[in-house]
Amino acid sequence: MGYNIAVVGATGLVGRTALKVIEQFGLPVCNLKLLASERSEGSTIMFSGREYLVKRLNENSFDGVDIAFFCVNSELSEKYLPFARRAGAVVIDNSSRWRMDRNVPLIVPEINASAYSGGGVIANPNCVTIQCVLPLNAIKKYGLKRVCYTTYQAVSGSGQKGVNALKHALNGQNDGFYPQDISKTCVPMIGDAENMGYTGEEWKMINETRKILGAEHLRVSATCVRVPTPNCHAVCVTAEFEKTFDIDAVKMDIATQQGVMVVDDLENGIYPVGNMADGNDNVYVGRIRRDLSCENGLLFYCVADNLRRGAASNAVKIAMALINQGKIDSKND
Amino acid sequence: MGYNIAVVGATGLVGRTALKVIEQFGLPVCNLKLLASERSEGSTIMFSGREYLVKRLNENSFDGVDIAFFCVNSELSEKYLPFARRAGAVVIDNSSRWRMDRNVPLIVPEINASAYSGGGVIANPNCVTIQCVLPLNAIKKYGLKRVCYTTYQAVSGSGQKGVNALKHALNGQNDGFYPQDISKTCVPMIGDAENMGYTGEEWKMINETRKILGAEHLRVSATCVRVPTPNCHAVCVTAEFEKTFDIDAVKMDIATQQGVMVVDDLENGIYPVGNMADGNDNVYVGRIRRDLSCENGLLFYCVADNLRRGAASNAVKIAMALINQGKIDSKND
Repeated sequence: MGYNIAVVGATGLVGRTALKVIEQFGLPVCNLKLLASERSEGSTIMFSGREYLVKRLNENSFDGVDIAFFCVNSELSEKYLPFARRAGAVVIDNSSRWRMDRNVPLIVPEINASAYSGGGVIANPNCVTIQCVLPLNAIKKYGLKRVCYTTYQAVSGSGQKGVNALKHALNGQNDGFYPQDISKTCVPMIGDAENMGYTGEEWKMINETRKILGAEHLRVSATCVRVPTPNCHAVCVTAEFEKTFDIDAVKMDIATQQGVMVVDDLENGIYPVGNMADGNDNVYVGRIRRDLSCENGLLFYCVADNLRRGAASNAVKIAMALINQGKIDSKND
Repeated sequence: MGYNIAVVGATGLVGRTALKVIEQFGLPVCNLKLLASERSEGSTIMFSGREYLVKRLNENSFDGVDIAFFCVNSELSEKYLPFARRAGAVVIDNSSRWRMDRNVPLIVPEINASAYSGGGVIANPNCVTIQCVLPLNAIKKYGLKRVCYTTYQAVSGSGQKGVNALKHALNGQNDGFYPQDISKTCVPMIGDAENMGYTGEEWKMINETRKILGAEHLRVSATCVRVPTPNCHAVCVTAEFEKTFDIDAVKMDIATQQGVMVVDDLENGIYPVGNMADGNDNVYVGRIRRDLSCENGLLFYCVADNLRRGAASNAVKIAMALINQGKIDSKND
């Protein structure tokens, strides 16, 4: 009974978080394969009270696997995903490699869980995009005209090396992982320089927002900034709508979106902060108010755990949704 | 020869920075009075190689003073400014108390140094606003339609207590100055809750931008967020214009604005960061590009030393400008 699961990149920050979430969510696991690079081969990881040996990822790693969670970068995903597919595994991929592929659905389960109709590959969206599209999904009925993102992204978004770099910097050592002393400054560049003066991370937010919300021509811009916080991304979101709206109705709309918690009582100092989101799967939304700079404009601020809601939990939720829809077969049946 | 200068709040973070700047800029000082609360009475501060005794601020502190730099909060400014005026001193006030007073000019010297025509009081604008209006001033010729600010504000903006709070938090002690552990999260509330869901700091940015740029009806919105950096504020600025513009021309316009340095070469990882600005008076501007979410939209990111450019240096520059314009008399002449 249950599924044969592989976690690729099991020793990384997202991989370890995925294991924690699989256990917490009760995904029915029959066999579990933990795969990683040569460097981590032979290490062990606890799962459901049992110790598992980490094996080296190779072309034959996927024999008998039903669901493979890929928690590695685009290069490794490109190289090994075909082997997982050939072995008949459904792949939920956390890298950006397949997200904009027309044949690959890009899923936030609370928004478009039904977007998968076979093909064996589902892309898990960019971490900071997920937390923005959830509240936007609840209010797109007012006719989304324009979205502008400004982000505050934690070092855990860069993986374990980012977390270490902040620790080192706070101890007075710059380990060179970030080009700047990340303990002393924000860094307004995440990813490589790409078209039109935007970075790779910013293009991900722009393109993935359109794809997830099914709004191909939506006007989106983004500024992505690394900040010296350990975990949980924050985003200030501006949205402009075709229709007029009532601000209290908008708050109610956002509050009724699955996966979202509204924490918005400025008079009493209630607004989203990292420690609300750290370790759970809600997107915390507050500072909901009119954008005074335009007609039918809205401003809000949202915080989520980028490792969970923005990565591992979203991936596991995708698997749970597809299982519930009868779209993943178990090789154990 | 020179002026009789008083610094009110001389032991605070802005007061001490003002003394450093007065010395560096060579403001012609004849007598110097350092004024502070009872708590700091009797302490000493070095200025120009000489030790000065800090005196307790009282109603008679301003006898003989030509220029008084007020580096205290609104309550103290409201209480003591009238005594400075009665003694015939020109007051450059760093609090927000008089900024929106119709009879008080709000000056960024590179923009509107000529706005003072007597009255004896000049308001120094909000720190994070100054660094935004300087680049905007250079491009307002394209017809500013709308401005939207999203800030990354360092703890030094809260004064010495903010600096201490971050240090304490990094050592695992929450001293309660910030409602949250500021070492672990951004805090999207600066100042009190005010109208329309905006905070006091956000209203300062909105109102002061209009006043400084002489654009009473400009549509402005702002989201002000405290981040765990020690010093130097950053802001992501969106601006929409009436006219079309060439992006290279805009970069050139901003680069030619006095007080601004353009650092913008994303391909080579060049963008504004805190350590560029820390300890000097330039506003560093980069990430200049089209805002893809609207017509004739522009995005940029700017960083400045909030204690210097955003406070002390701007105040001293105001004094220097008024002296050059012959608008301040010395009681020693």
